Amino acid sequence: MRNAEVTVLGLGAMGTALAGAFLTAGHRTTVWNRTPGRAGGLTARGAMELPTAAEAVRASGLTVVCLADQEAVRQALAPLAEPLAGRTLVNLTSGSPIDARQSAGWAEQHGVHYLDGVLLTTPAGVGNPDFLQLYGGDRATFDAARDTLAALGDPVHVGTDTALPSVYDTALLGQMWGTLTGWLHGVALIGAEGPGGGVTATAYTEVADRWMTTVRAFMGQYAPQIDSGQYPGGEFTLHLHSSTMDILAHASELRGVQSGLPQLFRELTGRAIAAGHGEDSYARLVEFIKVGGPA
Amino acid sequence: MRNAEVTVLGLGAMGTALAGAFLTAGHRTTVWNRTPGRAGGLTARGAMELPTAAEAVRASGLTVVCLADQEAVRQALAPLAEPLAGRTLVNLTSGSPIDARQSAGWAEQHGVHYLDGVLLTTPAGVGNPDFLQLYGGDRATFDAARDTLAALGDPVHVGTDTALPSVYDTALLGQMWGTLTGWLHGVALIGAEGPGGGVTATAYTEVADRWMTTVRAFMGQYAPQIDSGQYPGGEFTLHLHSSTMDILAHASELRGVQSGLPQLFRELTGRAIAAGHGEDSYARLVEFIKVGGPA
Repeated sequence: MRNAEVTVLGLGAMGTALAGAFLTAGHRTTVWNRTPGRAGGLTARGAMELPTAAEAVRASGLTVVCLADQEAVRQALAPLAEPLAGRTLVNLTSGSPIDARQSAGWAEQHGVHYLDGVLLTTPAGVGNPDFLQLYGGDRATFDAARDTLAALGDPVHVGTDTALPSVYDTALLGQMWGTLTGWLHGVALIGAEGPGGGVTATAYTEVADRWMTTVRAFMGQYAPQIDSGQYPGGEFTLHLHSSTMDILAHASELRGVQSGLPQLFRELTGRAIAAGHGEDSYARLVEFIKVGGPA
Repeated sequence: MRNAEVTVLGLGAMGTALAGAFLTAGHRTTVWNRTPGRAGGLTARGAMELPTAAEAVRASGLTVVCLADQEAVRQALAPLAEPLAGRTLVNLTSGSPIDARQSAGWAEQHGVHYLDGVLLTTPAGVGNPDFLQLYGGDRATFDAARDTLAALGDPVHVGTDTALPSVYDTALLGQMWGTLTGWLHGVALIGAEGPGGGVTATAYTEVADRWMTTVRAFMGQYAPQIDSGQYPGGEFTLHLHSSTMDILAHASELRGVQSGLPQLFRELTGRAIAAGHGEDSYARLVEFIKVGGPA
């Protein structure tokens, strides 16, 4: 798939980064933008700019669209049903699960192979092979496009439902905020400690980063518990979490550190213990995160 | 330092695991427990059990104490000032920063080299070289004990202040709960999605685990911002976080997922934006986690 042909519709900051990454990977890259004059840097690197979206789409078997919003995508695609038929369209424009299913419906109606995708990075990170890209849609379509998409990052197929990448994106961002807010709470706590004015964020983060290896191991250990609905606590029960959460809350209060997190953890854990799950693992809390709690 | 001599005082679940790890690493290990009869498995593996703590301490240059609580440590150490003088004492008993400074004060008064430590694992994880152990106290004392302590995990010296490991422990647990709660929120969200009843926790976690590589990169990038008090937002500003937090809150509500996290993130981010920091990075929030907010 080296030197495969690919077309990019839309040359905003992200579209320009996508086209640049395809060029870097050696793909014959065609670009189009509604407003011309944005492709200078790309054509200097060998991209071909075409004046109409229809011509651009015909230049490649694979077209990537990345516009300002899904309304712009609908307007751009409306006249492209005929040239896109039998070709593959990958939509990397930010949107909701509903948008993704609508676009997939339009594609199916017109015989277009369709993938909905999310890049978990900013334009500057496009092309970094460590960064995830999530795709939903037909598996064979993904497999055929995979090597070309690998120019943008690490492509992962999350399911045939085109709505999934958008939900994954939201879920993963929530996990990121949980991690970063917990980390900032720790930075504030440790920065308030010690006679010399506390530990620097940089020193703390060296340890905090290594600690994430252990936290990831917990996630891997707990995921099958959630799928089975059985949450054996082993040596690290909710009772034990609860008593150390009290220490966190007390230490934070003493040092004037308030993120709201200790109260949230205690409230959630307290509900699970009150319901008789004190000997279960932390993963049991997932049932109390669903509205109404466990059945 | 292979085959160094080490003494373990206290044979609860953790003390027994410590002595077992020292034996596994080939150290000549002496053990003592207030109530005799706990050392059978260890003596069968070559440990020497002695009837008094004073005799046990004299058997090695390095003594590790791990008892039920710090009051038990104070009682056990009171008659040991003379045998411990000139030797190294490592206290791995759970306790507060105040406990750690008190024990360090006692040790200094009696000419005992002292380290306070925290093992970031349960007894079953002792001996796993991936698991962190944090030590506070004199650097030369740590350096001399380091190779022996490496039998228990990955030893890290976090500073000369003996109170620090305990504060690190609390801060790192807060970060763990932030990560795990954010992850569970995502598991609940993605599990509620899709016509087929949702994605399994196991499938989601494969992606969530890889995503942590990116999240860790953010921590590493933001830590120097905090130390410098400058928070350039670049391509990922609080304004952008805020709009995607709204999506998380809305998506969670739609699917009946409530952890309290989206509200907490929005409240914290909203305060920073209201104070004029919308173009800053997420790390700016640390100033709003300190009581009273920024000066």
